[in-house]
Amino acid sequence: MNYPNGIKKQTNTSKLTTNINYKNRGMTLEAELNSSNEYYRKIDKAFIYKKPTPIKITKVDYPSRDKTIIKEAFFTIPSTTDYNGLYNGKYIDFEAKETASKTAFSLANIHPHQIKHIENIFNHGGIAFLIIRFTTLNETYLLPAKIFLDFLNKTKRKSIPIIFFREKAYKIKDGYRPRIDYLKIIDENIGGI
Amino acid sequence: MNYPNGIKKQTNTSKLTTNINYKNRGMTLEAELNSSNEYYRKIDKAFIYKKPTPIKITKVDYPSRDKTIIKEAFFTIPSTTDYNGLYNGKYIDFEAKETASKTAFSLANIHPHQIKHIENIFNHGGIAFLIIRFTTLNETYLLPAKIFLDFLNKTKRKSIPIIFFREKAYKIKDGYRPRIDYLKIIDENIGGI
Repeated sequence: MNYPNGIKKQTNTSKLTTNINYKNRGMTLEAELNSSNEYYRKIDKAFIYKKPTPIKITKVDYPSRDKTIIKEAFFTIPSTTDYNGLYNGKYIDFEAKETASKTAFSLANIHPHQIKHIENIFNHGGIAFLIIRFTTLNETYLLPAKIFLDFLNKTKRKSIPIIFFREKAYKIKDGYRPRIDYLKIIDENIGGI
Repeated sequence: MNYPNGIKKQTNTSKLTTNINYKNRGMTLEAELNSSNEYYRKIDKAFIYKKPTPIKITKVDYPSRDKTIIKEAFFTIPSTTDYNGLYNGKYIDFEAKETASKTAFSLANIHPHQIKHIENIFNHGGIAFLIIRFTTLNETYLLPAKIFLDFLNKTKRKSIPIIFFREKAYKIKDGYRPRIDYLKIIDENIGGI
């Protein structure tokens, strides 16, 4: 059964369900980040954008002089993270992912060259992090590059357990404007990120 | 008649032709910048990328479970500049354009929201600029945001004359590795850019 406003019938029966905030249901993490970034721009706070999805164009049509239609193209693997920009004179760079898992975030969701990119950014003085949302739990975390890279160096695990996020990452509260105020976490922890 | 290596028969008969450097003929400014950025990454100097071209996807096919083919899409107007990244802890942002004109760079080549973006980046402590190549003259310039924005504020002209570039912008010499060493200009003029 479909409920209005994108709210789905709750089938999760764990104890956590009673605490779930329904506010963001139906809006993807990407949509919320785009709206948050738009808000940051509007208030002249930060200029952070999602990069267009990289594609390889293989067929193009020119039906008229000033019109181009792409007739065949394929998604390609991105070489960097999805979001970057400028905040307060600082270079900001992050990747955002959702997972339905209640127990862990699978590292298969992040390409090896994206990890390398995050490492490069961190080493060269940029502010890099992941924003991971556990959709079923409705918990969203900002995981700073340093903590993420330390985890990768210290373990051979193929996923990051939810408990690691709860202990080491910064939980991002749901908001209204912006919906995901991740820069607040940067403001409060700038030295450590 | 087609010559090898992308070198085109010289039909320009002005005095300048004798000084033209043929080294880069056949390689676009974009290709040279991509190769320069790749070189900067290779030597661990800077992490600057061209953003993918923004498109709007209107039709998609799924011929098999893990294959997606875009069957119809359109190019859309970019909201930012084409290149951005991190150099030495600094946020770098620029747009690159070629013109065949020998007299001026038409401002019709830069979208109004790209100009606004350059202004935002400049105001918030990022390093923003244009890289403009006059292909017929084989002259390439780095025009810092401040000088560019000053020009726009002081004049109602619809183009920037070549003489303005020769007087106010930084000429980028052709190189081998990297082909366009624009970060050298940032290094030498970091205070003024």
